[in-house]
Amino acid sequence: MQYSATQIAGLLNGTIEGNAEVTVSKLSKIEEGVPGSISFLSNPHYTQYLYGTQASVVIINRSFVLTAPVTTTLIRVESAENAFAQLLEMYNQVKLNKKGISKLSFISESATIGNDIYAGEFSFVGENATIGNNVKIYPQVYIGDNAVIGDNTTLFAGVKIYSETSIGKNCIIHSGTVIGSDGFRFTPENDNKKVAQIGNVVIEDDVEIGANCAIDRATLGSTILRKGVKFDNLIHIAHNVEVGENTYFAAHGVVAGSTRIGKNCMFSGQVGIIGHLNIADNTIITAQSGISKSITKKGEVYMGSPAFDAAKYRKAYIHFRNLDSLVQRVDKIEKLQKEIDLKEI
Amino acid sequence: MQYSATQIAGLLNGTIEGNAEVTVSKLSKIEEGVPGSISFLSNPHYTQYLYGTQASVVIINRSFVLTAPVTTTLIRVESAENAFAQLLEMYNQVKLNKKGISKLSFISESATIGNDIYAGEFSFVGENATIGNNVKIYPQVYIGDNAVIGDNTTLFAGVKIYSETSIGKNCIIHSGTVIGSDGFRFTPENDNKKVAQIGNVVIEDDVEIGANCAIDRATLGSTILRKGVKFDNLIHIAHNVEVGENTYFAAHGVVAGSTRIGKNCMFSGQVGIIGHLNIADNTIITAQSGISKSITKKGEVYMGSPAFDAAKYRKAYIHFRNLDSLVQRVDKIEKLQKEIDLKEI
Amino acid sequence: MQYSATQIAGLLNGTIEGNAEVTVSKLSKIEEGVPGSISFLSNPHYTQYLYGTQASVVIINRSFVLTAPVTTTLIRVESAENAFAQLLEMYNQVKLNKKGISKLSFISESATIGNDIYAGEFSFVGENATIGNNVKIYPQVYIGDNAVIGDNTTLFAGVKIYSETSIGKNCIIHSGTVIGSDGFRFTPENDNKKVAQIGNVVIEDDVEIGANCAIDRATLGSTILRKGVKFDNLIHIAHNVEVGENTYFAAHGVVAGSTRIGKNCMFSGQVGIIGHLNIADNTIITAQSGISKSITKKGEVYMGSPAFDAAKYRKAYIHFRNLDSLVQRVDKIEKLQKEIDLKEI
Repeated sequence: MQYSATQIAGLLNGTIEGNAEVTVSKLSKIEEGVPGSISFLSNPHYTQYLYGTQASVVIINRSFVLTAPVTTTLIRVESAENAFAQLLEMYNQVKLNKKGISKLSFISESATIGNDIYAGEFSFVGENATIGNNVKIYPQVYIGDNAVIGDNTTLFAGVKIYSETSIGKNCIIHSGTVIGSDGFRFTPENDNKKVAQIGNVVIEDDVEIGANCAIDRATLGSTILRKGVKFDNLIHIAHNVEVGENTYFAAHGVVAGSTRIGKNCMFSGQVGIIGHLNIADNTIITAQSGISKSITKKGEVYMGSPAFDAAKYRKAYIHFRNLDSLVQRVDKIEKLQKEIDLKEI
Repeated sequence: MQYSATQIAGLLNGTIEGNAEVTVSKLSKIEEGVPGSISFLSNPHYTQYLYGTQASVVIINRSFVLTAPVTTTLIRVESAENAFAQLLEMYNQVKLNKKGISKLSFISESATIGNDIYAGEFSFVGENATIGNNVKIYPQVYIGDNAVIGDNTTLFAGVKIYSETSIGKNCIIHSGTVIGSDGFRFTPENDNKKVAQIGNVVIEDDVEIGANCAIDRATLGSTILRKGVKFDNLIHIAHNVEVGENTYFAAHGVVAGSTRIGKNCMFSGQVGIIGHLNIADNTIITAQSGISKSITKKGEVYMGSPAFDAAKYRKAYIHFRNLDSLVQRVDKIEKLQKEIDLKEI
Repeated sequence: MQYSATQIAGLLNGTIEGNAEVTVSKLSKIEEGVPGSISFLSNPHYTQYLYGTQASVVIINRSFVLTAPVTTTLIRVESAENAFAQLLEMYNQVKLNKKGISKLSFISESATIGNDIYAGEFSFVGENATIGNNVKIYPQVYIGDNAVIGDNTTLFAGVKIYSETSIGKNCIIHSGTVIGSDGFRFTPENDNKKVAQIGNVVIEDDVEIGANCAIDRATLGSTILRKGVKFDNLIHIAHNVEVGENTYFAAHGVVAGSTRIGKNCMFSGQVGIIGHLNIADNTIITAQSGISKSITKKGEVYMGSPAFDAAKYRKAYIHFRNLDSLVQRVDKIEKLQKEIDLKEI
C-alpha cells in the first residue's frame, strides 16, 4: 500500500514542509532511509542523518530548528517519537489482522466463543473455555479447560494456557510462553511427595508477556499479574506471586513463591527475588541483582546479590575493584608499625 | 461435586468437631475462606484466621488447642498440612483424568501403545516409540522416534521429546520443556564444525520437570536424571550431565556439560555449575551462586560467584558492604602514621 | 546396520591394526565400550582404558605409541577426535534423514516450497513464505507469513518463526526456540503504550540455536545473527541486537536492545549484556558476568557483575574472600596505634 505525505500528516495531525504528494510504502530508520520510505528524527544524536537521508518523508518535532536545507519532505508533530510509534502500530494492525476459525483447529463443543475471533491451524480450545471477542489464537496454541480469554487478546503461535487460567482484555502473549503450570512444591521431609497445585493464574487487562516465559498456577488461590504488567522473554513467576500494576520485568527475571511485588516497579535483566517477600511500589532493581529481603520504602534502587542500596553498592564495588591496592596499603602500614615498634624498643 | 465433613473425615482418618453434615465443594485458604469451602490450618502465623474464617470446614492438627470458640466444623488429623495435600491430590486426580486417543493426534503405526492412555489433539508419536499404560499425552506434544515413556507419566501440552529419549514411570513434564536436544559442542579450532550428538537422555521414575526447561542429549552415552529429581521452570541441563536421586533445582538453574551431581542436593534459583565437576550428595547452593570447582564434602552450603562456604561468604559480604568505612579507617591510620612519623623526625 | 573395520577405515582414510573383519553397529565411549561398538581415544586422560576396552574397534591418533598389547582393532588416523566427529555426523545424517510433506501439515497456497523438504505433522507454513531445498520442518513447527528459510536448514519440533524472519542455509534450530517475537519496548511516560515492533530477525548461514531461546525482532530494521553464530539453550536476544560471525553463547545468555557484538566472541553461561553497547571481536566473558560498558579492545577476558578485566577480578575476589582477615589486621593496627598514641602522651 502507498500513502501520501498528506494522508499521513492527516493521520498524525501534522503539518507538511516540502512535497506533500510524495508517497511511501514502508518504514525505515533515518540512517538507513531509502526512497519510498518514511522515517523519524527524535534522538538528537541522529540529527546529522536528517540532512542526507534518502527517506522520502521524515517526521520531526514541531520545535526542531533546521540548520541546513533538506531534500526530504518533513511532517512536523508535537512528538516525533510518539507519532512514529502510532504509525508503527497502525502498520502492525493491518499486518496482524488475522480472522476466521481454521478447519484444522480444535474447539471443544462446550467452549464459548466470541465474535470475530481468529483460531489458527492446530490450535486447541478446551472444555468450558470462554474466548472473548476479537481474540487472536495463533496456530498451535493450547487453551485448557475452563480458561477465560478476554476481548482483543492475542496469543501468538504455540502459547500454552493451562486449565482455569483467566486472562484479561487487550493482552499480548508471545510464543512459547506457558501460563498455569504447577507450582514447584514438594515435601522433601515426606518422601518428596508433590503438593498438588489447584489454584490458577489470573492476568488482568493490558498485560504483555514475552516469549518462553513460565508462570505457575497458585497452590491455592491465584498467581496474579495486575493491569498493565509488562514482561520481557524467559521470565519465571512462581506459585502465588502477585505482580502489581504496570510493573516491568526485563528478560530472565525470576520470582520465587508467594512474593508480592508493588506497582510501577522496574526490574532489569536476570533479576532474582526470593519467596515470601513484599517489594514496595516503584522499586528499581539493577541487572543480575538478587533480592533476599522485603523492601518497604517506595522508589528505592537496589543492586547486588544479595542486593542493597544501589549507590552504596556502587561505592563498595569501586573499593572491591581496588582491594589489591588497599591490601598493599595495609601491608605497608604494618611494616611501618613494626619499624616504629622496633624504634620504641 | 459436594462432599460432607463426614465423608472427608473418613478419607483422611480424621475426627470431627462441630456439624458433621455440612458440605463443601471447593478448597480455600483459611484467610480467604468462603461458605461451602474447606480449608486447613498448619502454620501458626495463620492461627488468628481460624476464629473468624467463613470456610465451612477446617482441617487442623490433632494436637491444636483452641483458645476461643469456632463456628466452622473442624476435622482433626495427625498433620493438617499432609492431610490437605492429600485432598489437593485427590481433587487434581479427578481434574486431570483425561482419557482416549484423539482422532486428531498422529501415532506412528510402528509405535507401541499401552492401555488407557490419553493422546490429545495434534500430539505426535514417532516411529518405534513405546508408550506405557495410563500415559497422558496432552495436545501438541511431540514424542520422537524410538522414545520410551513409562507408565503413568504425564506430558503436558507442547512438551517436545526428541528421539531415543527414555522417560520412567510416574513422571510429570510441564509444557514447553524440551528433552533430548543436541548438546552444545563445536570445534572452534576446526572451522566451527558441529560435533554430532548421538547419545540420549534417560529420565528415571518419579521425576517432575517444570515448564520450558531444556535438557540436552549426550554426545555419546546418556544425560541422566535419577529417580525423584525435581526441576522448577526454565532449567538448562547440558550434554552428559548426571543429576542424582531426589535432587531439587529451583528455577533458571544451569549445569554445563559432563558434570555429575549427587543425591538430595538443593539448588536455589539461577544457580550455575560449570562443566566436568563432581558435586557431593546433600550439597546446598544459594540463589545466583556459581560453582566453579568440584565439591567433595557432603552436606555443605555454598554461596557466591565463584561460590565458597556460605557462612564465610556472608561474613565477607558484610565486610564488602562496609568497605567504604574500612577504607576510611585505613585513610585515617595512614594520616596518623604520617603524623607519628613526623614527630619521630 | 553393521560396518566392518575395513569399511570404516576406508571412510576415514585410516589404517588398520588388528582384525580388519570385525564388525560394529554402534558407537561407545572408550570407558564404556562393549563388543560390537566402535570408540575413540584422543584425551590422554583416557589412555588407561585403551588396554582393557571391550569396544571392537578404537580410532586413535596416528602418532599414538602403544605401551602394552591391545585386543581391540585399531584404526589410526591423523586426528582421532575429528575422525570420530565425522563418524557421528554420518550416523546422524542417516537418523535425521526425514523426507516428505505430511498430509497433516498445513502449507499456505501462496508459500514457495523447495525440493526434497520434510514437513512433519501439524507443522504450519504461512502466506508467501519461502522454503528452500532440503529444509526439514519437524512436527508442530510454525513458520509465519513472508518468512524465508534457506536450503538445508532444520527446524526441530515446535520451533516458532514469526512473520518476516529470514533464516539462511545450513542452520539448525532446536525445539521450543522462538524467532521474531516483539522487542520489549513501551513508553512508561506515555501510559505504558507499546511501541510497535515492525522490524524482523535475520539469521545468516551456518547458525545453530539451542532449545527454548527467544530472539526478538527489531523495532525497525533487523536483529541480526551473522554467519556461524552458535547458541546454547534458553538465550535471550533483544530487538536490534547484532551478533558477529562465529560468536558462541553458552546457556542462559542475555543481550539487551541494540547492542552490537563482534566476531569470534565466547560467552559462558548466564552472561548478561546491557543495551546499546559495542563488544569487540574475540571478547571472552566468564560465567554469570554482567557487561555494563562497551568493550573496545579485542581479545580481552571479562569477569564480574559489573564485569572488568578477569585477571584483576580474580585478584580482587581473593582479597574479598579474605576480607575478614584484612578487617582483623586493621583492627589490630588501630589498637597498636592507640597504644603508641598513649605512650606518646
